[in-house]
Amino acid sequence: MSDSSKRFIIHKVSPGGAGAEGDEVAREDPLEIRVEGKSVAVVMRTPGHDRELAAGFLLSEGVVSKPDDIFEISECPSHADSPDERGNLVDVLLGAGADFDAESLTRHVFSSSSCGVCGKATIDSVFGNFPKIEVSRGPDAERLAGYPAKLRVAQATFEKTGGLHASAVFDPGGEIVVLREDVGRHNALDKVIGHALLGGRLPLSDHTLLLSGRISFELMQKALAAGIPTVAGISAPSSLAVEFARESGQTLVGFLRGETMNVYAGSLPEKDGDLGGEN
Amino acid sequence: MSDSSKRFIIHKVSPGGAGAEGDEVAREDPLEIRVEGKSVAVVMRTPGHDRELAAGFLLSEGVVSKPDDIFEISECPSHADSPDERGNLVDVLLGAGADFDAESLTRHVFSSSSCGVCGKATIDSVFGNFPKIEVSRGPDAERLAGYPAKLRVAQATFEKTGGLHASAVFDPGGEIVVLREDVGRHNALDKVIGHALLGGRLPLSDHTLLLSGRISFELMQKALAAGIPTVAGISAPSSLAVEFARESGQTLVGFLRGETMNVYAGSLPEKDGDLGGEN
Repeated sequence: MSDSSKRFIIHKVSPGGAGAEGDEVAREDPLEIRVEGKSVAVVMRTPGHDRELAAGFLLSEGVVSKPDDIFEISECPSHADSPDERGNLVDVLLGAGADFDAESLTRHVFSSSSCGVCGKATIDSVFGNFPKIEVSRGPDAERLAGYPAKLRVAQATFEKTGGLHASAVFDPGGEIVVLREDVGRHNALDKVIGHALLGGRLPLSDHTLLLSGRISFELMQKALAAGIPTVAGISAPSSLAVEFARESGQTLVGFLRGETMNVYAGSLPEKDGDLGGEN
Repeated sequence: MSDSSKRFIIHKVSPGGAGAEGDEVAREDPLEIRVEGKSVAVVMRTPGHDRELAAGFLLSEGVVSKPDDIFEISECPSHADSPDERGNLVDVLLGAGADFDAESLTRHVFSSSSCGVCGKATIDSVFGNFPKIEVSRGPDAERLAGYPAKLRVAQATFEKTGGLHASAVFDPGGEIVVLREDVGRHNALDKVIGHALLGGRLPLSDHTLLLSGRISFELMQKALAAGIPTVAGISAPSSLAVEFARESGQTLVGFLRGETMNVYAGSLPEKDGDLGGEN
């Protein structure tokens, strides 16, 4: 029994007949995130790397921005009487410098005009918390084209369940720094940037984020919170993701399939032998 | 310019060369949902069918359960000075019988034990709001196998952008009752069940829900809120979705591809000439 999948006996139907078989299913369980003992969110996630998930979540929400902002993250142990249920709670104690407004964090409602929020205002609201990308050195198209294959090789679970999203950060030399998988796209990315935050690696300048699923506004926002200049995905971006990237200075690549890709914002550098050579 | 997509000039890269081209991208914009003038959520959605989205959202949250619970849904018109920005606000006035606790609706935090919420408790909390499925008559495997092709034919936008999730309800005769697309899986389903709620069609007994994306716990919960006994998807379910379906009495089919499919919960009836014959 792994953290990331769970086995069920199911009924497989095919033209050749039907029968009961064992099948691995992507694990999904609720995780309650508390800050200073106060419950701020419940996310439906794949268990594992819960401390990173909480750290990345709080980074995206603007509550923490550096390792010192987190004093301690405590996790509940698994229940002795039901080992199948892991502890589904993390409590984050903040460092002295971190600012925490429980009310704004739990309500998740933007301030808005009399006719609701608009896309432009939603984008602009992010830049108050996170600086735009000024200068970046991303991979050239040929290097980037090799990232999806590296991701597939590194993915342990995806082949087994077909139900997990992957999120990975590549360094300038094209090596994977961290890879996380989750039933939720947001969670997989929160785990990746939480890992970088806890390891004192932020901002991830000159790094590239690769996403297995669709690229939404919120994923671009999380990438910017970690200072990631280049975001690439196997699948499609949304319009607000494109507009966000064009404002934030990020490079956004979608439909990255072999050597074919769409560059929606920014541009990839010309091929350059120096690129990442120091790695 | 359509509601569901937006055109950008992008840079397409391929082994044969690179160049600027127009490209349709799935539209994503924030929608603020208010109840009685009070802001309860901002969802990132594809514009269109916003009243259905609000109705389905409030159905899933247990705020409304029948058409009379909604007195009126008002939408802001598009801004005259920026026609590209639609009104991104709906305000729902409740009928006399509907019960609304703004505090519980905006906080989205489950009540939990000292060690956080567990999967079982999360599942059980749903059955307090929505009755389990007692008896249902779903499609047989041969009939169900034809649904994905019908969905593809009916999808207007997916082919164009590759960025939208689809959600559709089929009646017992195998005809599509309603199909909605959105950048968010939850939104697409909220629009579908909101449509059924506003049309006085709930519960959707003997109907089947087909989802283009992965099947999570929350999607199963929304389907149960609409009384849908059979949920099928092209892709994988999560473990909590499977466990939920086994408790709720729903039939859950994943990896529905041609005549091959996995039945994770419940069972499909034997082929029966009477099935849906009255339609």
